[in-house]
Amino acid sequence: MTQLRGQQLVSKLDEDGTLTVELADHDVPAPTDTQVVIRVEAAPINPSDLGLLFGPADIENATFSPGKIVAKMPEAAVRAMKSRHGLAMPVGNEGAGTVVAAGDAPAAQALLGKRVTCFPGGMYATYAVADAAMCLELGDDVSAEQGASAFVNPLTALSFTETMRYHGHKALVHTAAASNLGQMLVKICQADGIPLVNVVRSEAQVAILKDIGAEHVVDSSKDSFLDDLTAAVDATKATMAFDAIGGGKLVSQIMTVMEQVANSGAAYSRYGSNSPKHAFIYGALDLSPTVLTRNFGFSWDVSGWLLTPWMGKLGPEIVGKMRARVLAELTTTFASNYKARVTLEQALSREAALDYNARRTGEKYLITPAG
Amino acid sequence: MTQLRGQQLVSKLDEDGTLTVELADHDVPAPTDTQVVIRVEAAPINPSDLGLLFGPADIENATFSPGKIVAKMPEAAVRAMKSRHGLAMPVGNEGAGTVVAAGDAPAAQALLGKRVTCFPGGMYATYAVADAAMCLELGDDVSAEQGASAFVNPLTALSFTETMRYHGHKALVHTAAASNLGQMLVKICQADGIPLVNVVRSEAQVAILKDIGAEHVVDSSKDSFLDDLTAAVDATKATMAFDAIGGGKLVSQIMTVMEQVANSGAAYSRYGSNSPKHAFIYGALDLSPTVLTRNFGFSWDVSGWLLTPWMGKLGPEIVGKMRARVLAELTTTFASNYKARVTLEQALSREAALDYNARRTGEKYLITPAG
Repeated sequence: MTQLRGQQLVSKLDEDGTLTVELADHDVPAPTDTQVVIRVEAAPINPSDLGLLFGPADIENATFSPGKIVAKMPEAAVRAMKSRHGLAMPVGNEGAGTVVAAGDAPAAQALLGKRVTCFPGGMYATYAVADAAMCLELGDDVSAEQGASAFVNPLTALSFTETMRYHGHKALVHTAAASNLGQMLVKICQADGIPLVNVVRSEAQVAILKDIGAEHVVDSSKDSFLDDLTAAVDATKATMAFDAIGGGKLVSQIMTVMEQVANSGAAYSRYGSNSPKHAFIYGALDLSPTVLTRNFGFSWDVSGWLLTPWMGKLGPEIVGKMRARVLAELTTTFASNYKARVTLEQALSREAALDYNARRTGEKYLITPAG
Repeated sequence: MTQLRGQQLVSKLDEDGTLTVELADHDVPAPTDTQVVIRVEAAPINPSDLGLLFGPADIENATFSPGKIVAKMPEAAVRAMKSRHGLAMPVGNEGAGTVVAAGDAPAAQALLGKRVTCFPGGMYATYAVADAAMCLELGDDVSAEQGASAFVNPLTALSFTETMRYHGHKALVHTAAASNLGQMLVKICQADGIPLVNVVRSEAQVAILKDIGAEHVVDSSKDSFLDDLTAAVDATKATMAFDAIGGGKLVSQIMTVMEQVANSGAAYSRYGSNSPKHAFIYGALDLSPTVLTRNFGFSWDVSGWLLTPWMGKLGPEIVGKMRARVLAELTTTFASNYKARVTLEQALSREAALDYNARRTGEKYLITPAG
């Protein structure tokens, strides 16, 4: 077959702190065995992509030229990311497109010409390589755009409820809850009968969630926030939280409220309640430190949460069911909304980069390499 | 039998924020069934006792009169401790003394006249009531003072190593490690072959631990602290920490160092290592917030740790073995040192209260009610 050539968006951090994000020419390797080559049609920019793409680099003061951004990375981050120094790393966790070449294995050959969604990394490119077993074939009624975000958010939202069951909790609190992911979680919890407290940061976000039928929506920008949160935690008896924000006092406030609800009516114990309270931090919309005031007894856990190791913990049977559910409900429960569509080159413009790097809830970008 | 009368140290918080700590007259109830009455001879003031005794009240500006302290509690704490408003709560978790009265049950009668150590609460008193099953009888060669701290610190130190095994870790970091508890942990880890990194806050504390043969002792007051900690974590491969301090950045620094050690030589992952890192906060020597910078990937847990629920989790077989070991090694592994001995009344003097409430490592007080 002819050699496929295209472009690939790569991010490179040099030892001196220079971050270069650029479009590089990409000679696509011929697929072997179960590999397929996908002509990428749509790939979302998720917060987890921004970590590799820009990290904490100073994009505001970067130098922009066509197809290239050069920015300065803070010193501490340069040191922490030692093992990526000098490497041009392809970006883009997930996306959808058409299979244009395939290895010899029947599973790969069967996908030739089909539209698929996958999660191989390197999807901000004209072509990407994936393993056939990890691709989900899209139905004729599902566009590439509709199928582009079938992994990160849907599997994360479903894994939240499975993590809850794994640890024996019965109700959840979710922050930055008006996000695409948050809206999916609202729909999952509705369908599965899981009480859910949604914490959002504006009146407009309250409206988004109320519109899709969310019962408990609490606005952290209001003076009555802590009282509202207490009422919602009391109503749901939520004892586990998933937090996308990371920085600041929100996790601590949620734990404090959970502890107050657990203690209401109980006899005084200097050590607090025995009620387990568990917050998982899965994002970093706020890069500042997490501040825990520890006025919530000694029965608490705050943990990092990451999709891949948790899917390993949950095991193939549960993950298989999650994948099947995503595919069946791709245009309903797991529908995503995008603020803007950009080509690979447009994604590296100053205007676009500053806008999507602001990580505002509900303002996600979609890269459409073919334009 | 004659009614036993004595004095009991109680702490009462009123709704208006007034904290009253005083010696109250105490008519000791006649023991029934398996209960015994102990004439208290020695009871330590542990940090966990100070939480109930004073909490965050302003002892510096309190009013002191013989047998009485009246102090102001900060508003947030008054609200958080609603369920203790108006209650005169007896203080003193553990201590040792002689059994002077016993209920009818043979187990109780068998202890009459014996010296025992126990953990019933209310030990800052002339007499205290305990259940016979929860008392450990002291050998003739062990004084009440030697037996006074047989529960809180020894069982906590032993439970740390059991918690480590429970979670599948192999080496530990311990902070405020020059404390009585910390010295016990050094001896346990030596005997059991568990690599241990001791974090202390002064050169003098380094000397205390080196004197008892500790291998890895790191001084957080030195400029080279982070480098020293990294070297010690690298040498021990410690992935679990127990922290007595709570406030500030120390827990975060320990996690960061553990992550750096886990990553050294590994390929770059934007999500950090998969190496589990778990810090338990079991104390609050620093009442300020815990500050987590989260530059240690997503594979981490920070949890509260409390002795009683953990003993429940470990189960009666392990706890039984721990109790037997404590009794056998009370004057060696589990020996405690005290800075000062005070009567009940002396414990409420300004000089003593300010001194022991400073919670300085290695400066523990012992209450000897009989003087």
